[in-house]
Amino acid sequence: MELKRIYATIREDLDKVKETLKSVGQIDETWLSEQLSYVVSETGKGMRPALTLLSGKSFEYDLTYLLPMAVSVELMHTATLVHDDAIDKAFTRRGQATINSVWGDEIAILMGDFLFAKAGEFVADTQTPRVIKLFSQTLGIISSGEIGQFRGAFKLYQKRENYFQRIYRKTGSLFSLSTQSGAILSHAPEESVAVMKEYGDNLGIAFQIVDDILDFTSTEEAMGKPVGSDLMQGTLTLPAMLVIERNPADNPVKRLFETKDKKNAADAIEMVRNSSIIKECYKIAEEYCDNACRNLKTLPKTASRQALYDLAEFVKKQGN
Amino acid sequence: MELKRIYATIREDLDKVKETLKSVGQIDETWLSEQLSYVVSETGKGMRPALTLLSGKSFEYDLTYLLPMAVSVELMHTATLVHDDAIDKAFTRRGQATINSVWGDEIAILMGDFLFAKAGEFVADTQTPRVIKLFSQTLGIISSGEIGQFRGAFKLYQKRENYFQRIYRKTGSLFSLSTQSGAILSHAPEESVAVMKEYGDNLGIAFQIVDDILDFTSTEEAMGKPVGSDLMQGTLTLPAMLVIERNPADNPVKRLFETKDKKNAADAIEMVRNSSIIKECYKIAEEYCDNACRNLKTLPKTASRQALYDLAEFVKKQGN
Repeated sequence: MELKRIYATIREDLDKVKETLKSVGQIDETWLSEQLSYVVSETGKGMRPALTLLSGKSFEYDLTYLLPMAVSVELMHTATLVHDDAIDKAFTRRGQATINSVWGDEIAILMGDFLFAKAGEFVADTQTPRVIKLFSQTLGIISSGEIGQFRGAFKLYQKRENYFQRIYRKTGSLFSLSTQSGAILSHAPEESVAVMKEYGDNLGIAFQIVDDILDFTSTEEAMGKPVGSDLMQGTLTLPAMLVIERNPADNPVKRLFETKDKKNAADAIEMVRNSSIIKECYKIAEEYCDNACRNLKTLPKTASRQALYDLAEFVKKQGN
Repeated sequence: MELKRIYATIREDLDKVKETLKSVGQIDETWLSEQLSYVVSETGKGMRPALTLLSGKSFEYDLTYLLPMAVSVELMHTATLVHDDAIDKAFTRRGQATINSVWGDEIAILMGDFLFAKAGEFVADTQTPRVIKLFSQTLGIISSGEIGQFRGAFKLYQKRENYFQRIYRKTGSLFSLSTQSGAILSHAPEESVAVMKEYGDNLGIAFQIVDDILDFTSTEEAMGKPVGSDLMQGTLTLPAMLVIERNPADNPVKRLFETKDKKNAADAIEMVRNSSIIKECYKIAEEYCDNACRNLKTLPKTASRQALYDLAEFVKKQGN
């Protein structure tokens, strides 16, 4: 199913989120405005704000607080991407030149900070200390996770468990903030908040596994960034870990990490593509999607609950 | 008067702030913990948390909310310094090697983000959406101000008005958050919140003017960073603006900005030191200090109010 159909019940409100995001870019100083419009114009799949809205739809849906929350999670996501691109010295993202490549690292650092600030303003508009605290905790989890990833770069032997923890921090935590905040702001009972947390945690991990698969199997055109970016940055993802597990004595990932000779990246991609590794990775992602949905049945039977099931199916099938 | 004596009424609580800041550095991952302890161990003058506490002392002082607020403003300050140092490629700060110089820009970016997150967690603990919103707005003002400063680097002709606006953003806004939040969290009447805002805005500007003077008149030993750092970064501060105003045809600031030959920085410092520019700058700083205190008389006559007067006197006399 297409995202467009999955988002049908929240279509109008998701458009309001996008309008609000655009307005963040319309500020006094012309130059800053230009840069910001540039950042917020490409909002990707809008997965995180959609999760907040869909989560809220199962309970007492009130856009007064859900709208700023949905805007906030997308802004936080964007801010982390702007900083990540500066750290990774990435040139393109979502098919566009990155802030750091156009205006330099200094502006990327400050622009990211500005976006964090804006995200903070919107979350404050929810008037709900619990989600505000969760928001800040999530940013702490993401940034300490990124520190771990950066420090672990080009380290060949990492446990799978570390990988799952790392991608929970990187992606699961923000998915989880998105779903939990939607439930909390809609006065969901505590058991349901827990169900939405479980959904967000697991769907985020699944989404990141699939994203990591696509870094091997997709095209630059489809992803908006070069194939093999993770490998080049020395980030060990699940497919690369399986390459090492299956060929412990010698393999292109090992050679790449040891010699930094980029030729090995192409070999690793080739090896992954021509093996059952992809299938195995998708299977693991599917398990996380199933775990995400495990307790959705306890929620009220609504169109938005169905959309959460459909979204999990969508994640499973991305690029497959 | 020494800071120690000015802080007498809040001494114990300020110690609690420092203890809490240290605890931020004590987290699970050993390496992150090491870096954080390093960041939070040198908390400078503790001016911002002191302002929150002193401001609160004039009203219904309750440490339950004032303590996390005071911790939060200091963490936000530290986070901005960590990012600023990465942007300026600074080697030392407060006499210590900077995060970027020891661990690289990437870690400095992420460490700053982590500190913003922690600051956000503490401000959430105030349970007060109004100060939480103010907190985020302040971060927005600071970061957009830094963008302006970075873009204005090595631009020779700037209006004084721009300078004052710039240093309001850089320093005044956070002083203002510190004093306002102290008043709001202590249930001060609105008129008094406005008085504390006026105090914070103006004291922050005065503090920054004096800091900018010290960049010309002090020593590396006293400042913990090289003399003339602002000039080298192309940041036009008040003393440098007066050099240009007084010698429009030719002057070492102009030569420095045009040629980037560092010899001119030494000449500019020499010229400032041997002129009445310093005196004029201090006079302007004093005016801001007086404006800061203008309406303090409307506050209850307490020891903490006296401390605010004394703090303004302290700022006036720094390095003079």
